Amino acid sequence: MSTAMSARYDIEAFKKRIDGVKIEENPALVRQKSRDFFWYSPTLKRQLDAVTADIVVSPASEQQVLQVLAAAHDHAIPVTPRGTGTGNYGQAMPLSGGILLDLSQFNAVREIGHGRVVAEPGTVIAALDKETRSHSRQEIRLHPSTYHTASIGGFIAGGSGGVGSIRWGGLRDTGNIIRLKVATMEASPRILEFTGDDIHKVSHAYGTNGIITEVEMPLTPAHDWVDVIVGFDDLRAATQFANDLGEQDGLLIKELGLVAAPIAHDHFKRHRKFIAREQHVVLIMVADFQTAPLMGFIKRYRGAQVLFRNDQLPAEDLKGLPPVFELSWNHTTLRALRDDPSITYLQVLYPFPNQIELVQRIHERFGEEVPAHLEFVKFDGKVTCFGLPLVRFSSEERLEEIMAIHEEMGAPIFNPHRYTLEEGGMKQTDETQLAFKREADPQGLLNPGKMVAWEDPDYDFKSGKNFLFKGLAAQGAG
Amino acid sequence: MSTAMSARYDIEAFKKRIDGVKIEENPALVRQKSRDFFWYSPTLKRQLDAVTADIVVSPASEQQVLQVLAAAHDHAIPVTPRGTGTGNYGQAMPLSGGILLDLSQFNAVREIGHGRVVAEPGTVIAALDKETRSHSRQEIRLHPSTYHTASIGGFIAGGSGGVGSIRWGGLRDTGNIIRLKVATMEASPRILEFTGDDIHKVSHAYGTNGIITEVEMPLTPAHDWVDVIVGFDDLRAATQFANDLGEQDGLLIKELGLVAAPIAHDHFKRHRKFIAREQHVVLIMVADFQTAPLMGFIKRYRGAQVLFRNDQLPAEDLKGLPPVFELSWNHTTLRALRDDPSITYLQVLYPFPNQIELVQRIHERFGEEVPAHLEFVKFDGKVTCFGLPLVRFSSEERLEEIMAIHEEMGAPIFNPHRYTLEEGGMKQTDETQLAFKREADPQGLLNPGKMVAWEDPDYDFKSGKNFLFKGLAAQGAG
Ligand SMILES: Cc1cc2nc3c(=O)[nH]c(=O)nc-3n(C[C@H](O)[C@H](O)[C@H](O)COP(=O)(O)OP(=O)(O)OC[C@H]3O[C@@H](n4cnc5c(N)ncnc54)[C@H](O)[C@@H]3O)c2cc1C
Ligand SMILES: Cc1cc2nc3c(=O)[nH]c(=O)nc-3n(C[C@H](O)[C@H](O)[C@H](O)COP(=O)(O)OP(=O)(O)OC[C@H]3O[C@@H](n4cnc5c(N)ncnc54)[C@H](O)[C@@H]3O)c2cc1C
Repeated sequence: MSTAMSARYDIEAFKKRIDGVKIEENPALVRQKSRDFFWYSPTLKRQLDAVTADIVVSPASEQQVLQVLAAAHDHAIPVTPRGTGTGNYGQAMPLSGGILLDLSQFNAVREIGHGRVVAEPGTVIAALDKETRSHSRQEIRLHPSTYHTASIGGFIAGGSGGVGSIRWGGLRDTGNIIRLKVATMEASPRILEFTGDDIHKVSHAYGTNGIITEVEMPLTPAHDWVDVIVGFDDLRAATQFANDLGEQDGLLIKELGLVAAPIAHDHFKRHRKFIAREQHVVLIMVADFQTAPLMGFIKRYRGAQVLFRNDQLPAEDLKGLPPVFELSWNHTTLRALRDDPSITYLQVLYPFPNQIELVQRIHERFGEEVPAHLEFVKFDGKVTCFGLPLVRFSSEERLEEIMAIHEEMGAPIFNPHRYTLEEGGMKQTDETQLAFKREADPQGLLNPGKMVAWEDPDYDFKSGKNFLFKGLAAQGAG
Repeated sequence: MSTAMSARYDIEAFKKRIDGVKIEENPALVRQKSRDFFWYSPTLKRQLDAVTADIVVSPASEQQVLQVLAAAHDHAIPVTPRGTGTGNYGQAMPLSGGILLDLSQFNAVREIGHGRVVAEPGTVIAALDKETRSHSRQEIRLHPSTYHTASIGGFIAGGSGGVGSIRWGGLRDTGNIIRLKVATMEASPRILEFTGDDIHKVSHAYGTNGIITEVEMPLTPAHDWVDVIVGFDDLRAATQFANDLGEQDGLLIKELGLVAAPIAHDHFKRHRKFIAREQHVVLIMVADFQTAPLMGFIKRYRGAQVLFRNDQLPAEDLKGLPPVFELSWNHTTLRALRDDPSITYLQVLYPFPNQIELVQRIHERFGEEVPAHLEFVKFDGKVTCFGLPLVRFSSEERLEEIMAIHEEMGAPIFNPHRYTLEEGGMKQTDETQLAFKREADPQGLLNPGKMVAWEDPDYDFKSGKNFLFKGLAAQGAG
């Protein structure tokens, strides 16, 4: 297959044009860098398992990125950018083979100001924070639970929010990205700069319409966040508590999640001794100087039990314990999946103002088959919750059915079992991103197959069928 | 009157017990220090104009406060605390005469940490911020528009919120005060310390149940806030815009107010040249590094016109211009009142989720008689607005009627024409504050007449009558 692919592109000629840029051609290593966490989904696992690039190219500067893009353009070789490959939907997987543009070496923090930082796209978020913390006790507002591994460019191009979203909303929210520099895919690639609403042209576009070469992000004070776990016997009570806590405007909370029994006890191994099997847990990160008001707040709730506080345990008891945020978001899923490969997950929005009722009704409907996992966030100015519920997988048909029932019940699904922008998101064309792709990638060489509107302008999202990218079939998958 | 008053209390004996503490007995100066901004209200002006203390005492340390309280207690002389006397409802006015406890000399910043500051109660908020800014570019979360004159202790004891409330909610919200130290009014006054929910015992209690001797407040980054004024021809459009802006979770906004035409043009003298008479204006403070996303957001609104940005005017054009927050909150009222003494005001809550509709309906109902002034805030986790509408005053009866109509229409009034805690607030006894008064001020010597529940436990708040404190009558007022 790899040979068949290479035959399609003139990789040798391309290589001559990128002298000085680091490359990798060992097929095993190339295949490894062509993958992400797509295997969370049984559907994507089946569809994408055979996907691989022809070559990995690792530029370490803007100049090298431009050099690579110009050469790839001239030889009509597809380019799929990759940060560190922690996406969950095959976002960074090269469906048409070609060049895997590994940006992880392009990773310096360039400038730190009061409230803002400028960095190269491959900077790992934790590394970025390390610099801003030591510079001026600041940190990034939002990060995925893959804080220690994900790149800032990959987060912006492929992520949506996470830890911090209970305060700041998501990456899509105005103000959460200050400025982006983007390289176009043209004979003479240009560098464009976006601020304000123009940022939406390229953020969360899976790198289909430009390569982010510099980011400017807002910073917020870095506190010594305290991890707190509160237990409840009743799911509804836990949900109400978490929602109310999210509405405390004066409490500086960075993470607010809820995991239904028995998931926490069964899969949070290191925390198991603190959590009974029948306990639903609320996961909280609070600023160190606000533990007293938080404890005052918890006391108001009958049945709320503080199970864990990392600021009150001796150091030896904390050894090996992951931070609470690594029990949250898709780390919850990861821990369950690792123990039990038959588990998969959904991404659900429980819209304000009916979220508490809806969570309860859906929980009652599915019971053990779909254990609840909620992440409370600010969404359009209100507190509500996303769900990343676990699913005890039986078949793809049943998985589709579970999603359809969610939507019928009023809980929109952001489908994590699809590799295209549209099907995983709003199920409609993003005209802004499409228009910018026409301008910045007229040959359609950037991350082919991920933007349905580009591949098949007449595609009917209401058809009930999944979009199948032809390039995938060519790679032997589909 | 002053002689009559003195005859009631043994001021001479008291004075002998407070050696070393600064005092003032000049009747003109004592009378001046016995007043606040009660004259905003025609009702309070009539009722409280004759109020005065017998002596002003200005302790400069906790030890001096304790000395004063013990001596006053032994001689059964009432003590009314005062920060800097910028309250609007006579909160700091000594209705029974006696001692005016001026805390403005007790005003050091004691300790600055990451996210918190410890200060003495008389510290003026702007002075506090000056120290925290130069220490570590931090500032207080919330301040009244009387930033340059109000004390932090007076704000906690008599204020409610203001600039910053669009992000942090009000002072009542969990977490916006970290810790208070309070001196009791007993033979041997004690110092108590409150954190968590216990803070509510003494916050917003008008100093009726303890003297705050130390405060610990949360800090947040001090940015170079940019003042922006946006104009609209249509009030409803302006209200919708402001509400939507308040819901932008990623935009760091510190102030978000709305002043209906023609108030801004008529009374914001220094800004008049930027504002047409028929323009409704939205007043915004945004973090310096977020002007681009704000401008992007404004562009989405047809009819929104950026009238003013202080970051884009030459220095000479800015000379003498007050900051936008001094056009906001009760500074709006002050500017109108100064020009036209027949103007007074209300304090209204437009509850979520009907705020936009309600503002419109009330505006249509009263027209020119009650020009709208809105302050957008976070309230129980949602964005909504308070109103401090102006009222073209005709009679006390009509004023009462206007308030009654507001309540009928679904907009609760926090009556600024009452000097008691209950009538100005929730119109019911605060059991926590009352219980703590029993413990901390068993003789009822602290700020008499302000807590109805103490003076008349059987008072019926639904009677439709105003509470009249008998001590006031004794002072020749009422
Ligand atoms: C355990 C686990 C937990 C997770 N938790 C979260 C979470 O809380 N919130 C969340 O949003 N996501 C989460 N994710 C998904 C993912 O980790 C994040 O979105 C992460 O930020 C992606 O960063 P990355 O560097 O790995 O990007 P990659 O996976 O390498 O790339 C992501 C997308 O961005 C594109 N891309 C990368 N770099 C660039 C660039 N410079 N220019 C243009 N396009 C580019 C890629 O082509 C791809 O489409 C989680 C995943 C796992 C496995
Ligand atoms: C133009 C103008 C604008 C205003 N804007 C706002 C606003 O935006 N938000 C707002 O909330 N208020 C506002 N106010 C009201 C007032 O300015 C504030 O509440 C201010 O914080 C009061 O502080 P002060 O030091 O003047 O308190 P004072 O008026 O001196 O006292 C207020 C109350 O606190 C008590 N007190 C004072 N110090 C202590 C202490 N150490 N211990 C116990 N009790 C004490 C007093 O007895 C009194 O009851 C405004 C007033 C004006 C005139």
